[in-house]
Formats: sequence, C-alpha cells, structure tokens
Amino acid sequence: METILVVGGGLVGSLLSIYLARQGYRVELFDRYPDFRRAKAPSGKSINLTICERGFTSLDRVGAGDVVRAISVPCYGRMVHNADGTVEFQPYGNQREAIYSVSRNNLNRALLTLAIEQPTLACHFEHKCIEVDLDGPAVSFKHLRTGEISEWRGDRLIGADGAHSAVRLRMQRAQRFDFVQEYLDQGYKELNVPPTPEGNWALDGNVIHIWPRGDYMLIGFPNLDRSFTLSLHMPFEGNPSFATIQKPEEVLRLFETSFPDALPLVPNLIEDFVGRPEASMVTIRCFPWTYQDKVTLIGDAAHAIVPSYGQGANSGFEDCSIFADILVASEGDWGKALRSFQALRKPNADAIGDMALDHFHELRYLVGDPHFLLRKRIERRINELFPDRYIPLYNLVSFTNVPYVEALRRGREQRTLIDRVLELPDLLDRLDSEEIVDTVGALMDDTVTHPVYQD
Amino acid sequence: METILVVGGGLVGSLLSIYLARQGYRVELFDRYPDFRRAKAPSGKSINLTICERGFTSLDRVGAGDVVRAISVPCYGRMVHNADGTVEFQPYGNQREAIYSVSRNNLNRALLTLAIEQPTLACHFEHKCIEVDLDGPAVSFKHLRTGEISEWRGDRLIGADGAHSAVRLRMQRAQRFDFVQEYLDQGYKELNVPPTPEGNWALDGNVIHIWPRGDYMLIGFPNLDRSFTLSLHMPFEGNPSFATIQKPEEVLRLFETSFPDALPLVPNLIEDFVGRPEASMVTIRCFPWTYQDKVTLIGDAAHAIVPSYGQGANSGFEDCSIFADILVASEGDWGKALRSFQALRKPNADAIGDMALDHFHELRYLVGDPHFLLRKRIERRINELFPDRYIPLYNLVSFTNVPYVEALRRGREQRTLIDRVLELPDLLDRLDSEEIVDTVGALMDDTVTHPVYQD
Repeated sequence: METILVVGGGLVGSLLSIYLARQGYRVELFDRYPDFRRAKAPSGKSINLTICERGFTSLDRVGAGDVVRAISVPCYGRMVHNADGTVEFQPYGNQREAIYSVSRNNLNRALLTLAIEQPTLACHFEHKCIEVDLDGPAVSFKHLRTGEISEWRGDRLIGADGAHSAVRLRMQRAQRFDFVQEYLDQGYKELNVPPTPEGNWALDGNVIHIWPRGDYMLIGFPNLDRSFTLSLHMPFEGNPSFATIQKPEEVLRLFETSFPDALPLVPNLIEDFVGRPEASMVTIRCFPWTYQDKVTLIGDAAHAIVPSYGQGANSGFEDCSIFADILVASEGDWGKALRSFQALRKPNADAIGDMALDHFHELRYLVGDPHFLLRKRIERRINELFPDRYIPLYNLVSFTNVPYVEALRRGREQRTLIDRVLELPDLLDRLDSEEIVDTVGALMDDTVTHPVYQD
Repeated sequence: METILVVGGGLVGSLLSIYLARQGYRVELFDRYPDFRRAKAPSGKSINLTICERGFTSLDRVGAGDVVRAISVPCYGRMVHNADGTVEFQPYGNQREAIYSVSRNNLNRALLTLAIEQPTLACHFEHKCIEVDLDGPAVSFKHLRTGEISEWRGDRLIGADGAHSAVRLRMQRAQRFDFVQEYLDQGYKELNVPPTPEGNWALDGNVIHIWPRGDYMLIGFPNLDRSFTLSLHMPFEGNPSFATIQKPEEVLRLFETSFPDALPLVPNLIEDFVGRPEASMVTIRCFPWTYQDKVTLIGDAAHAIVPSYGQGANSGFEDCSIFADILVASEGDWGKALRSFQALRKPNADAIGDMALDHFHELRYLVGDPHFLLRKRIERRINELFPDRYIPLYNLVSFTNVPYVEALRRGREQRTLIDRVLELPDLLDRLDSEEIVDTVGALMDDTVTHPVYQD
C-alpha cells in the first residue's frame, strides 16, 4: 500500500485525505494545530466562509455534504444597505439558489472528524513542517508541544498547507518555479453581532448583508448560533483606512456616518476593532504545481485567491474530487495523474483568481454606479427571457459546476452582449416589453457561442 | 559609527560596500564564496557580462572605472551572422559608442579588492546566510568550511545577495510583500572559443557576435585573453531545445546546419555542451524593497532581470550610486533614505525588467523579419536627420544615464513615430532624400514630447 504524506489538515488537506484513504492509500496527515477534540479553536484565519454548489458536489461524494449543510446557514441573496438608509434585497436566483455560510472551524472539525474515521488514515497534530525533501519525498516536523523532531518518508507528498505553504517554499527554490504573491491594498477586520436578547438574528438571518461604500464596505455573514460575523473592509492607507481609523472615537465616527444602521448591532465594536488585527488578502499563482511523479500542491498552496467571490474553499474542494477522479483514471500512474491534474486545474485556478479580483471591485461599487445597476437590470431581464441560454456569471460560478475557465469565457461574452443591448435605441422604453425578445435573441446568437454547459 | 551588514559580496554588494565605507560607515560584508585571493573562481553564474555608460558612471565615482576598463574588451557593435552565411556589422552608434565585455569573476575580484582596501570595511568569506532577523537587524551565518555558526547584529542590513536572496526570502514571509519570480522558457549554455594558435581572436575581437535563428541563437562575447565565450540560447522544450538536443551527434548536427561558421571555432563543443548545465533566466519583482528604517534589498535581490539587454550589473551599479546620493541627501535619516530609494528606483527597475524581456524577443528575430529591419533602417535615418532629438532606445539605455522609466517612455514615442513614418506614401523612394526632413520633423513634433534628456 502506498503511503501519502499530506502536509496541512485544513479544509483541503482533510477532504483530500478522505478521498485518498477511500481509494485505499495509507494517508499520514500532518497539521500544526492541536487536536481539535481537546483544544480551543485556532485563530487568525477568517472565521466565516461560504460553501456553494461546487463545494457541495465534492463534499457529497464522500458523504460530507449533509454534515456540512447541518452546520451551515443557507443565504438566498444579498441585502444591500445603502448609504441613504434604504435596503434592497437581491436574490441570487429565481430557484431559491443559496450559498451556505459556515464557520471555518466548525467546517474543519467536521472534515477532520470524518478523516480520522478512515481506517488507513492517521492524523498527526501539532506537527509543524520544518524541512521538505522533494526527492524523498520526506518531510521533517517539529512537535510544537514536545519540541521533538521527526522525519517522515512516503511514496508521495501533497502540500495542502495553504497560502503560506512550506512545501511550496521548498519548490520555489527548485528549478524554474514561476511564482507570484500579490496583496490587495485593502484589509479587513472582523466584528461580532450577537443574537438579540430573545435569541433571534439581529438582521434577516438567511442573507448576506452588504454595506457598500466605495473604497470601503461592511459585509455580514450569519452564524449557526444566530450571531453574525461582520467584516469591515478598508484600505490600509488613505482615508478612511486602517492607518487613519484607529482610536475609539475614529471608529465610532466612521460607523455613525457610514454604517449608522449597523452601529447598534455591534455592542463590542471598540473592543473588537482595537483587539483584532486586520487581515490581509493575497493572490498566489505558481507553476509547476508538481514535482516529478512525487509531489503536488493543492488548494490555497497552489492558488490562493482573494475571498470576495467566496470561492477559496469551493475551488479547493473541487481540486480534491477532480484529483481523485484523475488518480483513478490514471490507474495508479502518479506521474501521469500529476501532469493531468496541473494541466486541467491550473487554467481554472487562474480564472477564478482573476474573477475574484474583478468581483472584489464589483462588490465595493455595487451601489455607487448607476451604469453598473443598469447593466445588472439588463442582465436580469436577459436571464428572464432566456433562462437556459443566459446564466449570469455569478450564478455560473456559485450554482453550477461549469469549469471556471468556461465561466470566465462566458462572462466575457455576456459583457459583450450587454454592451450591444445598451446600444439599442430607446432601450429603457423597450426593455420590459415582449418585442425585445427577438432583438436580444438575435444579439445573443451573435455573441454567445455556447448553449448551456453540460456537465 | 553605525554598522551596516551587507549580505552578498557579488558585484553590487562589493560596490555598495565601497560607497558606504567611503561615507564613514562601518561595513561588515559577507560572502558565501571563499576568499578570491586564495581560491578558484566560483562557477555556476554567467561568466561574461557587459558594462556600459551607466555602469561606468557609478564605478568612476569611487575610482573603480579605470580598473574595470583595464580588464574589459570594448565592443563597438554587433556582428550579425546570418543563416545564409553572410555577416553584417551593426555599429552601436556614430561616435564609436562601446559596451565593455568583462568576465564576471575578474570584475568581482576587482571590486572586492577595492572594497577590502577600505579601512572601515571587513569582508567575511565562506559565510552562508542561514537566518535573518529583520527587526534586529541581525543575520546568522554558517561558515562553509568550519561549520561554525555566528550571529551578527548591525544598525542596518542590506540584502545584496542576488536573485535567490535569503534576505528577500525572509521579507517574503513578512507583512504584505508582493513578489514575482518568472522564468523564461529558454535557457543557455556556455561554450568556449579559444584564441587562434597565433594568439589572436578567432573572430573580430571588438564586437558582440550574434547568430540569430528565431527561437534559438548563439551569442559571443570577447574575453581579455582573446578567447570568446559563446552562449547557446534555446528553449527548454520543443525542437530544437535542450530536451531534444542532448547527444553528441545531435549537438553536431545543430551546429552543422544552423551555425556552420561557428563550428570550427569551438574545438571542445561536445565536452562543453555535455559537461555544463543549462542556465535559466528569471525576472524577479518585489515590493516593498525595504523594511522599516532598517533593511533594504538592492540589485538582483530587489529586481533580477533577464540578461538580454546587458543591464543586470549596470542597473545594480546605478542602484549603488543613487543609494549613496540619497543617503547623503537624507543626512543620516535612514527611514527617509530607504523610502526615497525604493520610490525612485522601483519604477526604474520595473522599466528595465520590461525592456529586457522585450529585447530578449528582439534579439532572436533580428534577421527573420524584414519588417523589423525596415523599422531599424527608418530609425537609423531619423537618428541621422535628428541626432539630438532622436536617440534610439538601445542607445538611451546603453550610452546615457537617462533613467530607465524615461527611456521606456521615449521608446514608446519612438515606436509611434516610426509607425507614422511607415504610413508615408512612397516612403522607400523618399527615405534617403533631403526633402523627408521636414515631413519627419513635423511627425516628430507630433509624437515626441521631450527633447534630449538633461542629466
């Protein structure tokens, strides 16, 4: 039985380990955090994330989907809190499509619990990777409590150790490794909205709340305990920014002027703001992901993306099921499997990385730009007229398993189509009429090359 | 007296150390290689490079220019060896402008010799950097012969440790460090052309020789001992490539068909080819270059570029003199100096990085594209008509101290001007006539915004 060393017991490392153990591999899974069964949750990472269709597709195949659904809150759309105090609900779709808000720790515990149940899997906690030998492959770990150093040797090595991957750092020094890490000039800080005294949501509980204010914004995710996690996104420099908003009175003034309806919901605003560090957001791209027939990176270690599209975990989960499929199709030929995996997934990882950066800008300016809102209105109308032929980009990404490259390509076609619709004479008078069907249909024949993707 | 730790005693580290010692700083210079006064030359790096105007400007200011001129071979142009066996000499300019071919080792020894003479400078050889503490700043080294570990603490730390900088690797893990390393899909291998039995150059000795063949090429640099160093540039994959050309008969066949006039000049072709590894070429960009008021990267550590433009060492030397000037102007305020240095130099480093990549493509296709040659002919004519207003981009980069960003900007304007000239009716009939002066002059007034740069 081949032994696979998996470095990193986060979301992707634990799900991939389940897949590999199910295929009969001996899996040695290493994580730097203490055993979750007798420890407090680790901190420092975003405490909320959302799982959508493609994440669940990969979770369901190992029976983890329902476990995750049970600890998640479905959100059926965005509630936009405008600067003038009005709110506007934007459903994600017409079929009650939902993304699922879940705590990263709860999700990780659920996956690790399932991983540990696999008979051929052993999980080693508090193991910090200190040295990687790509040729072995072998990895040395320091036990963070006892200080003991141990070296593990395996047949294959998988670096599922996240955006700051130690396995990747070793590959970076190997032959011709292309690498990019690029930070946004914005960061975010998390604030807590507790349940009401009656134990209810303080805001509508089955939606994502957004307060878009241009360069900065507030975004809120519901938690299972009926609290919300609010993330305040701001630039690191400028005004307002984490450089200029630091003192309690500055924080208060920002909320009073920009988020007055949120202010009463955050009783520990000052403590949360002052006591928590601002998180940064990075995009990581690299190539190759693999080393000979021995090593691969996967998930954030291969392709960290900014969180705005909610696709970090989803793309990582998709990596796992696709990797598992390729491994089966390669009949144990790891060289072939690793080559296929990076050839298939690298373009998709680049595509979602680009779309996440685009979406980062879109989220912030949702409300500020009437032209953008007009485009959204046109998009909804086209989708209404041609529900099978026109699925908006957000929905392709979040509610289908259409490959990211294909979604990106179709998103570009959709932009061209909307550009052309915008050129129609008397557009606003005609947009809601019946006769526009033929006109838009003809433009669509011109610009949209593929019908619905068949997966 | 402040102590400056300089990691890396290569070209930039040694020149910068001279500048710093001259300003009265105590300099501790660390290099991983053995003391050159009692050791063989290190291998693995390109053994030839060229120094041009901006390099000499920085060398002359500490009295190193003439030492370097004495060990260099001036080259007054390119000799293009065409596939049909014809050769064409392209002078760099009309004033016998030259770039100077020099051995990297000889150049490094010359600079280290001068560095060691500085009374406040100590050079520590065989010191490999193993740990960097940015906050100290402090650096730990392992002595490569004795194995001894030593920690050095200073007031400032300068990472002049090249494209694979250990100081930068530490900064990469610090807050929000943007980083890119990108390899070309081509590499090169060095071959030796010995002098003739009579002790003469086997080819014209005061030129750079180029055999451009599209995807691959041969380029030759004269050495002081009347040998040449030939670099065979090829893709890593494809045909021909380092993947397909490996056996002696494959190497021979490539030279027989593509470089027949070079073949008799390389008596040890097979040994050189088989015995030497192919070198790769990387572009490195990062930001910030500095950490608080304590640390800066400089030279290749901050901005490695591909070697095609011959600007790697020159841009690094320019870093040194500019850094020295900024340090004086900042009156010892290192925080201010480091901020000014990266603000001024980062755009210039990006510009020469981009131009080097452009030039990489240009060099390979010099001969293949009649359109390109027509553009070059037009450029020479414009330069002839307006020698003060139109200095070709290559000459701006190689024979002036015009900042790289300004050269890049003017190169773009020059492209536009040539595009416009190409649209003139009956161009070829008129190009060499007198009357074209006014026409081109008018187009130039339209497109070229600055007269000659005043430095």
